Amino acid sequence: MFNFKIVAESKTTKARSGILTTAHGQIKTPVFMPVGTLGTVKSLTPEELVECGAQIVLGNTYHLYLRPGCEVFHHFSGLHDFMNWDRPILTDSGGFQVYSLAKLRKINEDGVAFQSHIDGSSHMLTPERSIEIQLLLDSDIIMCLDECIAHTAGRKASKNALERTTRWAERCKKTWEKEGKNALFGIVQGGMYKDFREVSSQALIDIGFNGYAVGGLSVGEPKSIMIDIAGFTLSRLPDSNPKYVMGTGTPSDLLELVSLGADMFDCVLPTRNARNGQMFSRDGTINISNSRFKYDTQPVDADCQCYTCKNFSRAYLRHLYMAKELLAYRLNTIHNIFYYLNLMTRIQDAICNGEFNEFKKDFYRKRKMGV
Amino acid sequence: MFNFKIVAESKTTKARSGILTTAHGQIKTPVFMPVGTLGTVKSLTPEELVECGAQIVLGNTYHLYLRPGCEVFHHFSGLHDFMNWDRPILTDSGGFQVYSLAKLRKINEDGVAFQSHIDGSSHMLTPERSIEIQLLLDSDIIMCLDECIAHTAGRKASKNALERTTRWAERCKKTWEKEGKNALFGIVQGGMYKDFREVSSQALIDIGFNGYAVGGLSVGEPKSIMIDIAGFTLSRLPDSNPKYVMGTGTPSDLLELVSLGADMFDCVLPTRNARNGQMFSRDGTINISNSRFKYDTQPVDADCQCYTCKNFSRAYLRHLYMAKELLAYRLNTIHNIFYYLNLMTRIQDAICNGEFNEFKKDFYRKRKMGV
Repeated sequence: MFNFKIVAESKTTKARSGILTTAHGQIKTPVFMPVGTLGTVKSLTPEELVECGAQIVLGNTYHLYLRPGCEVFHHFSGLHDFMNWDRPILTDSGGFQVYSLAKLRKINEDGVAFQSHIDGSSHMLTPERSIEIQLLLDSDIIMCLDECIAHTAGRKASKNALERTTRWAERCKKTWEKEGKNALFGIVQGGMYKDFREVSSQALIDIGFNGYAVGGLSVGEPKSIMIDIAGFTLSRLPDSNPKYVMGTGTPSDLLELVSLGADMFDCVLPTRNARNGQMFSRDGTINISNSRFKYDTQPVDADCQCYTCKNFSRAYLRHLYMAKELLAYRLNTIHNIFYYLNLMTRIQDAICNGEFNEFKKDFYRKRKMGV
Repeated sequence: MFNFKIVAESKTTKARSGILTTAHGQIKTPVFMPVGTLGTVKSLTPEELVECGAQIVLGNTYHLYLRPGCEVFHHFSGLHDFMNWDRPILTDSGGFQVYSLAKLRKINEDGVAFQSHIDGSSHMLTPERSIEIQLLLDSDIIMCLDECIAHTAGRKASKNALERTTRWAERCKKTWEKEGKNALFGIVQGGMYKDFREVSSQALIDIGFNGYAVGGLSVGEPKSIMIDIAGFTLSRLPDSNPKYVMGTGTPSDLLELVSLGADMFDCVLPTRNARNGQMFSRDGTINISNSRFKYDTQPVDADCQCYTCKNFSRAYLRHLYMAKELLAYRLNTIHNIFYYLNLMTRIQDAICNGEFNEFKKDFYRKRKMGV
């Protein structure tokens, strides 16, 4: 059970708003997916996520495979049941984490042999295994295993990785088709080369997926290149399917990528920055540890309707953060997740009301500081 | 605005149930006060505390004086406002923390000079200053500054400390009377010597306080001595006033002390143990990290009505705890606080229904493991 219906399109940009239907309910797009690496969006309960407006969360196959381990999920009806989250879940394939976290990684045609970043134990991830794990988790949106490369990779390495990613995508689809449940997305690779991005996009379209993701970005390349490559790739993907730009980004990145036709996003920025004291607002960002907030009885953002802003002052948040109190991470995370999700809601509304361009101008006008 | 009214008494023990009226509302006794050291019961929001049944929380004067510092409270109407908690607050005087945490402590008749455990900065706490800070915090129940001693202190040291505590109590009352708002409690000292406990109790009664606390216990002495000294001291305090046994204890300690006439308790046990994975239940305690919970789809306590038990399995809680996820500390804390507060509610009901003795027997019957 999966489909995507576009309900509104911007006339002057490629922005669109739609409805994704999954086995666990509908999702309005463009959508931001909070990252719930280990079956928890760090520090928050499922109820708080709903209160913040979360429609879907992302789980990390690599992390869940290592902890709590696949055998645990045999005792539950899936990740939803385990973490008590009844809305949709997208799981990544593990490709990016194996690339960025695992030790002694060895890639061959079969898959990736790696050592756990936790205890050094040896593991093997193949396209088939990645899909089997995601099916076990009962993920609503399953991602193909891809080969990730550094943004500095040359043409040869980029070409090899995209070709392997294509062959793996075929194997992923074959494995997925055995059960055929939920949805499977392909991931475009091709490094920083547009011709390779085009080849990769077309190869995935030929295989046929429920949705398409732009992978291999936000890995250290300059922002202008990220936007350029993402925009080019998005233009090569079918408009009738959801398009997902993986692992990005700042509020302005999201706005730019929506303008270029992106429907889905995930990023650790709102949650990780919250735990580092950086909080988003319509005016830009603030660092709550700043001593100028010591006596500040105002909320982080007077216009914000999140639980944190409705109940607590900057002085209190600063105090909690300076004292390393657990409540600090929660309250900051609630605010940042609410900010991101509310931004997406405002973007959806702007697209649906034919006011996306005005919204974008207004957004930049209000930002006094960059993020 | 403060009074105490006894509404029911056990016929076979000294247990009683009553209503404490404070400027921020009523409290049913016997009451357990969750410890909110730095203006937060670690990891919980005020709403969660209310949902767990918290009627009052405890704040630590020593900690709040150092962080965020008194000057911050001049910008708020008090600690309630700062932490967004509108129910009653009791603050301790700082005496115990100066004794247990501060460095290079020097006590003389004027007060205690000490160095901060955070940054080594030099400070002076006098009886007058302690009360002034607690008035600034707008604490509903203000505690006198006392001199704490080790449980191994001999007769001479114990006598000196109790006599100084008495002289300080007089100074505290004098300072408090200038504003006369809320309530002031005296603290009985006297070490492990009943004759000194009697002298201290009578001296405080002669000065006259809104309530009386038994201090200097749960500092390392054997449990039987703690119960014996507490019971003796409680018997020497006026029945018409609330009696508070400070810094204790396990669920069975609370039950025993209620039997001996105690009305109020505070302890870090439920919150600290939660963060160490130890969770309370009617059957005793479990350590959630135990590998036997790896596949356990049941809640910590099937009879428990707390948010954690209604929504999450032992396997999920174990996973969160093993992965050091922030949500682990919250969910465990919610359960333990709920357990303690629910225990107190059940004790109140048993006293009011004339079934306290049966309740006590049943409590011990159900506990398969000791805490």
